[in-house]
Amino acid sequence: MQAEIIAVGSELLTPERVDTNSLWLTRQLNDLGVEVTQKSILGDNRDRLASAIRSAIDRSPIVILTGGLGPTEDDVTREATAQALLRRLLYSEDLMETLSARFARLGRKMSENNRRQAFLIEGARILPNPNGTAAGQWIDLPGRIVILLPGPPRELKPMFSDHCQPMLSEVIPQRSLATLVFRVAGMPESELDQLIAPIYTPYSNPETTILAKEGDIQIHLRATAETAAEAHAIASEVGGKIQEALGKRIYSSDGSPLEAALGALLKARGETLAVAESCTGGLLGGRVTSVAGSSEWFLGGFQVYGKAMKTRLLGLDEKLVEDNGVVSEAVACAMADSARDRTGATYALSVTGEAGPESASPGIEPGTVWIGMASAAGVSAKMFRFGGDRERVRSFAVQTALNLLRLSL
Amino acid sequence: MQAEIIAVGSELLTPERVDTNSLWLTRQLNDLGVEVTQKSILGDNRDRLASAIRSAIDRSPIVILTGGLGPTEDDVTREATAQALLRRLLYSEDLMETLSARFARLGRKMSENNRRQAFLIEGARILPNPNGTAAGQWIDLPGRIVILLPGPPRELKPMFSDHCQPMLSEVIPQRSLATLVFRVAGMPESELDQLIAPIYTPYSNPETTILAKEGDIQIHLRATAETAAEAHAIASEVGGKIQEALGKRIYSSDGSPLEAALGALLKARGETLAVAESCTGGLLGGRVTSVAGSSEWFLGGFQVYGKAMKTRLLGLDEKLVEDNGVVSEAVACAMADSARDRTGATYALSVTGEAGPESASPGIEPGTVWIGMASAAGVSAKMFRFGGDRERVRSFAVQTALNLLRLSL
Repeated sequence: MQAEIIAVGSELLTPERVDTNSLWLTRQLNDLGVEVTQKSILGDNRDRLASAIRSAIDRSPIVILTGGLGPTEDDVTREATAQALLRRLLYSEDLMETLSARFARLGRKMSENNRRQAFLIEGARILPNPNGTAAGQWIDLPGRIVILLPGPPRELKPMFSDHCQPMLSEVIPQRSLATLVFRVAGMPESELDQLIAPIYTPYSNPETTILAKEGDIQIHLRATAETAAEAHAIASEVGGKIQEALGKRIYSSDGSPLEAALGALLKARGETLAVAESCTGGLLGGRVTSVAGSSEWFLGGFQVYGKAMKTRLLGLDEKLVEDNGVVSEAVACAMADSARDRTGATYALSVTGEAGPESASPGIEPGTVWIGMASAAGVSAKMFRFGGDRERVRSFAVQTALNLLRLSL
Repeated sequence: MQAEIIAVGSELLTPERVDTNSLWLTRQLNDLGVEVTQKSILGDNRDRLASAIRSAIDRSPIVILTGGLGPTEDDVTREATAQALLRRLLYSEDLMETLSARFARLGRKMSENNRRQAFLIEGARILPNPNGTAAGQWIDLPGRIVILLPGPPRELKPMFSDHCQPMLSEVIPQRSLATLVFRVAGMPESELDQLIAPIYTPYSNPETTILAKEGDIQIHLRATAETAAEAHAIASEVGGKIQEALGKRIYSSDGSPLEAALGALLKARGETLAVAESCTGGLLGGRVTSVAGSSEWFLGGFQVYGKAMKTRLLGLDEKLVEDNGVVSEAVACAMADSARDRTGATYALSVTGEAGPESASPGIEPGTVWIGMASAAGVSAKMFRFGGDRERVRSFAVQTALNLLRLSL
């Protein structure tokens, strides 16, 4: 079974923006056994879009459109699809009720052009959107399916998973699929690949993909077979060997991110964490609290960005800061120590460094970061030098701090 | 003048890979005054590709293909283009000599299938490739240009810059381009569009694009004209009206993000900021410190995520927290007040809310966030209800807090 994806939006034809929805959709379609044979990106031009939809329907049994379902005049996907299919757009009382209820719930006034979102292509089924105003639409044609999805990923993804996936499963002959995901922190991609390439390269099933991003590597193994048990056995055979080779460098085997893996460890031990952040300014706490329920193991901390804050909020000795400089082992240790003390947490992590592009500390290169860790056993700090721009340095600092504590547990 | 880009390669139809060549090419084409009206991504399937090329030529005066010029059987761009144009592929002595010389220079043996790269579409001009074996091809048709470029960016980019750009300049009437970017916070996209659609819709030049993301809206105006001054005047005419309609809801006219705009305001006034974060856990400070040089106006703050931290780190009255609940006007005010007091900052922002998916506060719905602001003039707090998941609620809370302070300045 083959599908095409058409992404709609003039912003996707600018030098700044890339269509990423189609990557996620391709994964979902592949999992259903559907191959993506063509992707197109069009602007907010109704005639051009209608013609592209027409051609896609001629070629492919499944055509998925993303974007262009918003309330503005620019949003032409509904009109263009109706034009391509030679069908009318009909005002839907059901859609209007859903829209009105949504605005009432949020205590906002519905603007006149939101009415545009209450129009349904003749014969289409509504794909409900609990996360936005743009309903999706599903149109069954003889031997063809056309699906209209909203552009924002947080609207598109649940809509596809909750509605399109089960609806597509009914029409597509099913294959079984097993996926294993290992996540690894604390080693460069090239080093990891050197270790595990000899393990996975002999196999085309499972298919192995390695994705690396800012100190975080994901290893995806995808196996297909007639039954779920068979697919799982195929994935596990290679997965087991990879686990053996990487050991504790693997921090999660269920896809969960580092902060969640760390949180699960702390929760199981009934322990808590606090932070003291200088160059990350709050990113470490922000990342940790992205985990729902993190209040069970994360207490809080101090954003001691300005130099004076280190003494003022954490009570660090002024002379210690002056003598060692803010980016130093002594200050990293004192920050962690004080944060642990003042919050009463089991562990405290501290981050102090020069994120760049300039360095305010004489003799300290941008990218230099000290990470401190305090526990009942005492306090210590390690120095790291991260390459790249300000954003990358800060992101690596957060990742490394989380991994340091994980490894110590 | 309009162009289409077709990226060729089955790897570009996997969930992991995205076509980025087209972003770079779009920038170059825009700078030449050429608009990209459609992008397509196809796999290594000759018939399908030939049909896509044929359609593109029917629609657009300039068609650029990238990729599929390698030596393997999978590389079908030459064959597909010849098929689409009903032209022969001719063996080129010139190309073969260049290839042989290249292999000789690198001391490598030329493989048999490299011969495939010596074939030229009837009537095509060679675009030399000093960085690889795949020559580009330029085909002039009546009122149409078809360009074949190699896929690797380090081969494609110099080939386009050194050859295609000057060749295109000769046939394209030269246009100058001017871009204006306004960024807006604190209003939903639909409301903004209702205000400014009547202003920009009458104009096709400048072209207006609206990009919205988590409480942040960008308005891009791109104007073309014969001279730079004219283009600027065209963009400014519509830009001026939009500025008038939106007033202070526009926080930046140079593309800089909200935290940078706020920082510039504070810096100019010689004032400073501190934060006290509960449900955002540090995201607000993290975002503020993403601005290089933010230490000039951002001091730091408190991550009071756990309930006890509100009294322990900020010294809030225990009874006040108990009586009002952590998600309340009283607590938001007290947090801001104390953060300002303890840091000595001119302003303090506080955030306390239920980010979801569950609420720990009885009677408080997930998505409810109180934002407090303290200054010399006193302290106040406002309640907001943000829709969406945990990530979105927290992101909106940060954006809204920054915007509240900006508007008060």
